[in-house]
Amino acid sequence: MSILVVGSVALDTVETPFTRAEEMLGGAASYFTTAASLYNQVNLVAIVGSDFPGEHIDFWRSRPVNLAGLQIQEGRTFRWVARYHMDMNARDTLDTQLGVYAGFHPVIPDEYRRSSLLFLANIQPELQLEVLEQVARPGLTVLDTMELWIMTARPQLTEVIKRVDILLMSEEEVRQYTECPSIVSGVRQLLKMGLKYVVVKQGSYGALLFGADGTFFSAPTYPLEEVIDPTGAGDAFAGGFLGYLSLVEPQPDGRYAIDEIKRAVVHGNIIGSFVCEDLSIGRLRTLTMDDIAERYSALVKCSHFDPNWRSA
Amino acid sequence: MSILVVGSVALDTVETPFTRAEEMLGGAASYFTTAASLYNQVNLVAIVGSDFPGEHIDFWRSRPVNLAGLQIQEGRTFRWVARYHMDMNARDTLDTQLGVYAGFHPVIPDEYRRSSLLFLANIQPELQLEVLEQVARPGLTVLDTMELWIMTARPQLTEVIKRVDILLMSEEEVRQYTECPSIVSGVRQLLKMGLKYVVVKQGSYGALLFGADGTFFSAPTYPLEEVIDPTGAGDAFAGGFLGYLSLVEPQPDGRYAIDEIKRAVVHGNIIGSFVCEDLSIGRLRTLTMDDIAERYSALVKCSHFDPNWRSA
Repeated sequence: MSILVVGSVALDTVETPFTRAEEMLGGAASYFTTAASLYNQVNLVAIVGSDFPGEHIDFWRSRPVNLAGLQIQEGRTFRWVARYHMDMNARDTLDTQLGVYAGFHPVIPDEYRRSSLLFLANIQPELQLEVLEQVARPGLTVLDTMELWIMTARPQLTEVIKRVDILLMSEEEVRQYTECPSIVSGVRQLLKMGLKYVVVKQGSYGALLFGADGTFFSAPTYPLEEVIDPTGAGDAFAGGFLGYLSLVEPQPDGRYAIDEIKRAVVHGNIIGSFVCEDLSIGRLRTLTMDDIAERYSALVKCSHFDPNWRSA
Repeated sequence: MSILVVGSVALDTVETPFTRAEEMLGGAASYFTTAASLYNQVNLVAIVGSDFPGEHIDFWRSRPVNLAGLQIQEGRTFRWVARYHMDMNARDTLDTQLGVYAGFHPVIPDEYRRSSLLFLANIQPELQLEVLEQVARPGLTVLDTMELWIMTARPQLTEVIKRVDILLMSEEEVRQYTECPSIVSGVRQLLKMGLKYVVVKQGSYGALLFGADGTFFSAPTYPLEEVIDPTGAGDAFAGGFLGYLSLVEPQPDGRYAIDEIKRAVVHGNIIGSFVCEDLSIGRLRTLTMDDIAERYSALVKCSHFDPNWRSA
């Protein structure tokens, strides 16, 4: 079951209170692709300029990543510059240079059309709609977005939300989009739009899963001794989430068992936590399934407690 | 096993984006006492002025609360005025009038001296030291504090920390006191001061338990549809935490089993979540052990997941 992802590939310059690094591989689709390809084959649709370093292409070629949909166009690759605060849950974007990305229109190669899972990474809702027009409805479609599109492309974003199964949003984005101060009420409003699940990302605090069937699950995150660079944690979360689900057989009705969805959220948190341990995709390059299984056990150990409210 | 608490009793005026209420029962010791007395007897040491409404005294008399240590002095009760932001994890203090609290020195009545558990609620570290001088070391001593004392009374606070078993601190307080950007590193520094456990309070995100023995536990919190007033949630957390432990028999070595400590953190989160559902101690007045047991089950259900990292 391969995974189709459409999103941005960029060169990032990131400054934290402790370090600064220039022109590293970045962009939502880069993090997602590298993370999800730990689990299964990823079919990438994105655009880069003629200045895009060949080493990144070579790296993805060493993984189960299909690059038939990666457009390489004369010009400059998308650049993004950001600075993190002392509390690394917050950052400021200092500069954005779209380069060839400004003219991007996703084209889904024929060989991608059998992908069972689709991830619409954080790009303009208009482009996400172009993707949905080109694919027969996959088994599962997951959507990510950002504050900018909530502010500038709300009607189009609403259109996309109505056509997907699962929405990933940060807490702040839920508040912005729904205008509800309460996350619980905001999510209820989102679920009424036809979503099966909403996953609320809470940065270093973990993630919440809400289902249209009333499911609620609060997934713990792994407490890191040191956060080097949180860039891409949300995209890597999506990579772990969809990567795990790509290994699972859906039920006869096409839906995933709720235990599998919960497990997928935990995988998302795990991959999201690993990403923060190094700059760019550094930690994802060396990560193995054994590392993931080990952190999974650590999360079980640190979050489960006696199910009886008092001792016998 | 009765619980001794020393802290503030106040009259609070609180403004949230949705409501405003004046001169309600407040203060750390009020929240703690009301919460912990759901579990066991509480011995209160505090001071109020001659204007303190008798109805609050009457309410505590209806509970297993010993008021022998409540000083009633000619003058005005401590007043506190605060305003919450739209994100109710943040607030500003608008006014503080100490009244009779300015001359407070805790006096522990003889009949309190057999208390097995001691909670030093958030008051000046100097006063907390006065309490420690008056009591033989109880079975368990738990300390709370606040940013103000970290900034203005750091040496005295350090002295108190060295003499207690468990420290409750918010994330920001851990960063401020230890000057570590990482909570994990900051807590390690605190544990080196001789504490058995540090509980890091994360507001609506739950709480983290770190033990000197290497224990780590991440306790989920209950997602509220609507937060009316988060004032006192940390004090009520302490009430649930110590209240639960007061029902537990320590091990032969005098220590509590780690499963009991974890369960106590969950009780703390539960009581902290209930408090937010109404102004002042409103929700704690009507709360029953059945309500607590029901929310405990809900937390088990929403936080436990399959311990195997993939399906068989």
